Amino acid sequence: MRQSLLFTKTRKDISKEDVSVNANLLTRGGFIDRLSAGVYTFLPLGLRVLNKIEQIVREEMDRVGGMEVLMPALQPKENWEATGRWSTFDVLFKIKDSNDKENALGATHEEVVTPLLQKFVHSYKDLPKAVYQIQTKFRNETRPKSGLLRGREFRMKDLYSFHANTVELDSYYEKVQEAYARIYLRCGMAGITYLTFASGGTFSKYSHEYQTITDAGEDIIYVCTKCNVAINREIMNDLDNQCVSCKSKDLQEKKAIEVGNIFKLGTKYSDAFGFEYVDENGQSRPVIMGCYGLGPTRIMGAIVETHSDAAGIVWPKSVAPMAVHLISLCRESADLDKAESVYQSLIGAGIDTLFDDRADARAGEKFADSDLIGIPLRVVISPKTLADGQVEVKKRADVETKRLSLTGIVAGLTKELEGVI
Amino acid sequence: MRQSLLFTKTRKDISKEDVSVNANLLTRGGFIDRLSAGVYTFLPLGLRVLNKIEQIVREEMDRVGGMEVLMPALQPKENWEATGRWSTFDVLFKIKDSNDKENALGATHEEVVTPLLQKFVHSYKDLPKAVYQIQTKFRNETRPKSGLLRGREFRMKDLYSFHANTVELDSYYEKVQEAYARIYLRCGMAGITYLTFASGGTFSKYSHEYQTITDAGEDIIYVCTKCNVAINREIMNDLDNQCVSCKSKDLQEKKAIEVGNIFKLGTKYSDAFGFEYVDENGQSRPVIMGCYGLGPTRIMGAIVETHSDAAGIVWPKSVAPMAVHLISLCRESADLDKAESVYQSLIGAGIDTLFDDRADARAGEKFADSDLIGIPLRVVISPKTLADGQVEVKKRADVETKRLSLTGIVAGLTKELEGVI
Repeated sequence: MRQSLLFTKTRKDISKEDVSVNANLLTRGGFIDRLSAGVYTFLPLGLRVLNKIEQIVREEMDRVGGMEVLMPALQPKENWEATGRWSTFDVLFKIKDSNDKENALGATHEEVVTPLLQKFVHSYKDLPKAVYQIQTKFRNETRPKSGLLRGREFRMKDLYSFHANTVELDSYYEKVQEAYARIYLRCGMAGITYLTFASGGTFSKYSHEYQTITDAGEDIIYVCTKCNVAINREIMNDLDNQCVSCKSKDLQEKKAIEVGNIFKLGTKYSDAFGFEYVDENGQSRPVIMGCYGLGPTRIMGAIVETHSDAAGIVWPKSVAPMAVHLISLCRESADLDKAESVYQSLIGAGIDTLFDDRADARAGEKFADSDLIGIPLRVVISPKTLADGQVEVKKRADVETKRLSLTGIVAGLTKELEGVI
Repeated sequence: MRQSLLFTKTRKDISKEDVSVNANLLTRGGFIDRLSAGVYTFLPLGLRVLNKIEQIVREEMDRVGGMEVLMPALQPKENWEATGRWSTFDVLFKIKDSNDKENALGATHEEVVTPLLQKFVHSYKDLPKAVYQIQTKFRNETRPKSGLLRGREFRMKDLYSFHANTVELDSYYEKVQEAYARIYLRCGMAGITYLTFASGGTFSKYSHEYQTITDAGEDIIYVCTKCNVAINREIMNDLDNQCVSCKSKDLQEKKAIEVGNIFKLGTKYSDAFGFEYVDENGQSRPVIMGCYGLGPTRIMGAIVETHSDAAGIVWPKSVAPMAVHLISLCRESADLDKAESVYQSLIGAGIDTLFDDRADARAGEKFADSDLIGIPLRVVISPKTLADGQVEVKKRADVETKRLSLTGIVAGLTKELEGVI
C-alpha cells in the first residue's frame, strides 16, 4: 500500500476525552477515528489489524468445531423477557420499530442463539453442537472513556456450546480454554494474559476470565507466582487469600483488563426457552450450555496498551497492519526507480508492505510516523544506502540498524522477518 | 463440511409472513432463520454464500482504488441535523444513549464519511480519494415482507468518492460502473441485470440503478431492446417514452428489484459540513462527491429469486456455499470407507464439499435436500456405483446424470466443475 494514496495521515489533534494510551496512539497513528464516546471508525490500517485478530480467532474457533453464523443486532423484547434480562441487563440499548415493537440492540446473544438451536436440536443425536459469530455488539455504557477497551459499539466473538450432559460440557470447556490460550499466544499477548478465576453462577462455582496485565485495566487480579493462574479480587475474600488452584499464598496484586470470559451456563437459558432434547431412553432433558466471549476490538486496544513506547505502537508481527514499512528518502529519478523496484519485489513476494513514497514529507517526519504506526520491520532506502547498493533495516522493537544488500533483498528481508516476534 | 455435524437441517416449518420465494427457499434450505420481520440470522451455509458475494464486491472495490474502512452504526443526531436528514429520512431508527444523547442507527453513511474525510483532506494534492465499507445497516421499514430483498437489518457495501472537480468525478463514476458490471457478472446475474436510469438530484439529471428482472421486484423498469439499458418508470413521463440513451421507442416493461444504486452527490454533503479543499491557486473549493451503494444480502435474495426451480435453489458456482455435494448412500463398512476416502480426496484438493454422511437419512430425503440446497455439482456414491468402481455425477441445473471412475476422481470432478456456470 502506497502511503501517498492512503487517505489517513498521522494526526496530532485528538479528542480531549480520549485519555487512554490506546485511543491516543491509535488515533494519532491513523488506525481509528472517534465518532462519539465509545464509538469509533476503523480506518484502513486499523481495519487490517482488526481483520488479522478476527482471523486468528476464527481459525481457533473452527479448530474446536465451532460453526460460524451471523446473528442480528435487532432482537425482539420478548426474547429478553423470556430470560428476565429485559429489565436487569443495565447497559442494554432499547429501540422501538415502526410497528411499535420494542427491540434490544444485541449486547450478547443468548436470547437469539438459544431459540435458534432449539429449532434444530431435538435428540441426543443432535448434540453436542457449537456455534459462534464475530459480530458488532452494542452496550449503552455510561462513561466510555478508555478507547477500544470499553466501547458502546464494539466487535465481539461469541461462541455458544450445547451439550447433553455436564461431562460433555466440562470436556468442551477445556478445549475452548486451550483455544483461548492459542489465541492470546498468536496475538502476542502470552506471558501477560492470565486465566483468571472469577465469580460463577448458579451452575458453577467459578467462571473464567482472561485478564491482561496493564495499568489501563479496570480490574484488580491476584497472580499466583507458583501455578500461573490469577484470581479476580471479587472472589478473593471467599478464598481466604489463597490461590484457588494450588493454595499458595504467594499472590501478586495487578491491574488488568478482561480480554475474554468463559462461562458454564448450565440450563439457565435452555430452561428460559424450554429447550429440551430427548435422550437415549426417550426422556426429555434440558440442554446444557456454555458461552465463551472474546472482544477483538478490546484485544486490539489491550495490545496497544501493552506494546508501545514513547514513540508509538510496537505491533506483534501476527497482527501488524503490514509486515514491512519501506521508507524512501530518494529524490533523484534513478533512486526513485530503485525504491519503486524494491517495493514491487516485496509485494510481488507477498510481503505486506506500507511504502512511504511521499514526496513532500521530510526524513524526520517519515521516521516519526513509522515509529508511531509501529510496523515490525522498517526498511529505509536513501541516496546514502543506495551508494553502497544497500538498504537500512531496523526492527521496531530494537534500536540497532543493519544494512542489507539490494541483491537478494526479498530473501534477506524474509529472513529478517522470521526474526521478528 | 460433514452434513451430520452441521447444526442446521432442511426445514418445512417456515413463517407464514415470509411469502417470498427467497425467504421460503433460503429458510427451508437452512441458509437463514427469521428472528423478526426483516431481521434474519445467517446460518453456516448462508454465511458462506454471503461471504462469497462480499468477497467479490471487495475485490472489485479494491480494483477501483477503494480503501476499506468500517464505520459505526451509532451516529450522532448532530451529524444528521447538519445534512437536514434527521427529520426527513423516513426509515431512520433513532435511539437515545445513557447520556440522553440521540443517535441514528446507520441507514447510510454520508453523515459519517464526509466529516471523516474532512479531517484528512485539505488540499487538491489529497484528492481524489475513494473509501468503502461492507457493513450492517438498519432501516425501520414499515412492512418488510420480501425476505432478503428488503430487510430492517441488512448488509450493504457503500463506496464514497471525493474529487476536486466534476471531470474527475465523471471519470471515476464510469470506472465504478465497470466494477458494478463485473460484480453482477461474477455473481451470475449478468443478462438479467440492467443499468437503469432513475431520477437524479440537484447535481445530475439522472442517477443510475442496477435492476435485476424478477417478478419479486418492487420496481417497474423499461428495458431498451436496442441498447440494453433500462429506464425506471419514475422518470418515463419526462422522457416521452423514449430510451434516454438511443431514443428508441422499443421498450419492454418488466418488474425488477434494485440491486445497486450509484449517485453523483456533487457538493450536497460537503456543503452541509463545510468540507472544502485548497486548489492549485490557493482558493478554497467544496469537495465533489459520489456515492455507490450495493446490498450483498439483497443480491443473495435476488439470486435465489432468479436461480431456482420447483425443487429448490440453483446457485451460480461463484457464490454457491460449496462446489460439490457428495452424497453417500453406502451402508456397508467397506463402502463407507470408500465414500470417506472420496471426501478426503476432494477436500485435500481444496474442493469445497458438503458431505452428506448422514446414516439415518433415506436416499430420497438426501436427493430432495440436495436439490433444495442447490450446490452446483451432485456426486452420488452408492453400492450400485461402487460395483462399477464409479460415482454418479449430476449438475444441479441439468437432468442428465453421468458416471465417473473412482480412479482419478479429483481430476474428473475438477473438469466437471469447469463446465458448471
